[in-house]
Amino acid sequence: MKEPFARTQRKIAVIGGGTGSFTLLSALKNHTSQLAALVNMADDGGSTGVLRDELGALPPGDVRQCLVALSSSPKVRDLFNYRFEEGSLKGHAFGNLFLTALEKMTGDFREGIELASEVLGVHGVVEPVTLTNVSLVMTNGGQEVHGEFEIANQDFHGLKPEFRLEPAAEPNPQAIRAIETADLVVIAPGNLYGSLAPALIVPGIGDALRRTNALCMYVCNLMTKPGQTAGYEVSDFAAEVERLAGGEFLDVVLFNTEKPSDELIDRYAQAGEKSVGYDVQTLHDAHYVAAGTNLLAGSIWRSGTAADPIAASRTLIRHDSAVVANAIIELYDQVSHARR
Amino acid sequence: MKEPFARTQRKIAVIGGGTGSFTLLSALKNHTSQLAALVNMADDGGSTGVLRDELGALPPGDVRQCLVALSSSPKVRDLFNYRFEEGSLKGHAFGNLFLTALEKMTGDFREGIELASEVLGVHGVVEPVTLTNVSLVMTNGGQEVHGEFEIANQDFHGLKPEFRLEPAAEPNPQAIRAIETADLVVIAPGNLYGSLAPALIVPGIGDALRRTNALCMYVCNLMTKPGQTAGYEVSDFAAEVERLAGGEFLDVVLFNTEKPSDELIDRYAQAGEKSVGYDVQTLHDAHYVAAGTNLLAGSIWRSGTAADPIAASRTLIRHDSAVVANAIIELYDQVSHARR
Repeated sequence: MKEPFARTQRKIAVIGGGTGSFTLLSALKNHTSQLAALVNMADDGGSTGVLRDELGALPPGDVRQCLVALSSSPKVRDLFNYRFEEGSLKGHAFGNLFLTALEKMTGDFREGIELASEVLGVHGVVEPVTLTNVSLVMTNGGQEVHGEFEIANQDFHGLKPEFRLEPAAEPNPQAIRAIETADLVVIAPGNLYGSLAPALIVPGIGDALRRTNALCMYVCNLMTKPGQTAGYEVSDFAAEVERLAGGEFLDVVLFNTEKPSDELIDRYAQAGEKSVGYDVQTLHDAHYVAAGTNLLAGSIWRSGTAADPIAASRTLIRHDSAVVANAIIELYDQVSHARR
Repeated sequence: MKEPFARTQRKIAVIGGGTGSFTLLSALKNHTSQLAALVNMADDGGSTGVLRDELGALPPGDVRQCLVALSSSPKVRDLFNYRFEEGSLKGHAFGNLFLTALEKMTGDFREGIELASEVLGVHGVVEPVTLTNVSLVMTNGGQEVHGEFEIANQDFHGLKPEFRLEPAAEPNPQAIRAIETADLVVIAPGNLYGSLAPALIVPGIGDALRRTNALCMYVCNLMTKPGQTAGYEVSDFAAEVERLAGGEFLDVVLFNTEKPSDELIDRYAQAGEKSVGYDVQTLHDAHYVAAGTNLLAGSIWRSGTAADPIAASRTLIRHDSAVVANAIIELYDQVSHARR
């Protein structure tokens, strides 16, 4: 049976792996059923880290969360995210065990993703950027740090580190193909060096991004991370994304222009996190189209009289993923129309 | 959509829990799609024992195997039986983790069975005989032993022990209903005191067996177990099944009449296991119909000229489950016809 609007549906590939990706995927699935989530494979913390250490498994955690984001079955979704609370299974998300059991059984991580996709009623596909069992390695001014979890806690001392994967990663051909055949590629917001770097540095990913006819869009972070992206403006984030991918490829950078409340800004400042600023002239001169708008969660309800009390009471500076998804689609339509 | 022969399909309930049940279910599913597997819930060994100890979970192992026996999806079936081989997950069957995760998540063990049934494409239903979290307790001449796993290793010294469940078990109403509405109830072969006792002693099960209009049939074991059923003949096994269920209820007892090879008998004798004998007169005088025939695996090929080399090389004394299932259905048709 054909879906009524299947022919007009955009093929969208989302690159990332952290929370930013999951929430964005959840929102984008309302706009298209042709979503491909391309997931970084260097995670080594928590339940995922234990499965990697003990069983030599590929990291299931981020894949699981992308599958869950694209699932249409609420009960299986809850099951996949369920974490055991006691005993030797403590901390393991059930979905991680599902993916790992199938990988160990069949020797093929993608078989686990396929079966999980069936069971979860996933709309779209989830593809690891690589199927090589890799670790992220950072070199920063002579210092070498191994492992994503370790790197997340490092102070870069204002430098821009080099990253590599060990052993050398083979790109997953299906991930390359998803980039090549997409109408739109979105680099998700999230941890720049923890989530995006291990995806963007996989050999072949950057070249695919430069080669594809897809519109390539980066959704910039809202806040800086102390010791790593402190002082970064929107253009700095975009420049780092391109440096990690080995060269320019961005067509559009979407960023937030709304100021969070002073109270929230103060609270985040105590943790060293600041709003990402932007310089209009720098962005104007950039090789990409920079598009700024209000993207904060809660903001959409604030101006009305029937303010949503939940939104109004929000205590975190977060993207409103529905607003971000709408902005992405609108920008895509505008820019790809102008391109023709 | 109606199945073509739905009206003529027999409703069959199988009571048990061990290997005997699983193989019988696998064979019976070719004869009807209306199978109910009623599973004992006192298992406390292996992966199941760890999940019970650490998480206070209901025992998933036997339920998992019954689900797998009734599954129509080969890949998910393999996944459910997959056991982790290393690390802190070592020994856990994936299907056990599935059932336990859902039980812990929802507080309802049957929800796990329902979702697993969906995922596995199960034809029929699997129902625990009780949803009370019980242990099997045996008293034998002043000695008290707790736990199915412990009891399995006991020498009964020729006595017939008393069994109870702790705490007091509530029967699962769905299991009672399956017995009441069945056309045929089969007591599966298997460990008499380890697998059948904890199912038959659940309050309400014995009464349902005596109340039901279903034909009640017991498939007798092939071999005795030293220290427990040593010296038992077919009539002794049947008498114990009825004693455990609190009184007479059997209409038919199906037993094997074929002698295994001398070589196999010798090998088993070294482990203290002997063929279950039968006395024609005793069985003739019994209140049930006793039906003996050749039920051994391998036998069906042996007499022909084109002997199956795999069957001929079999080194275990086992029921041929397809032959047993055929015999069950044939007996049911004969006896229920004679009853009319």
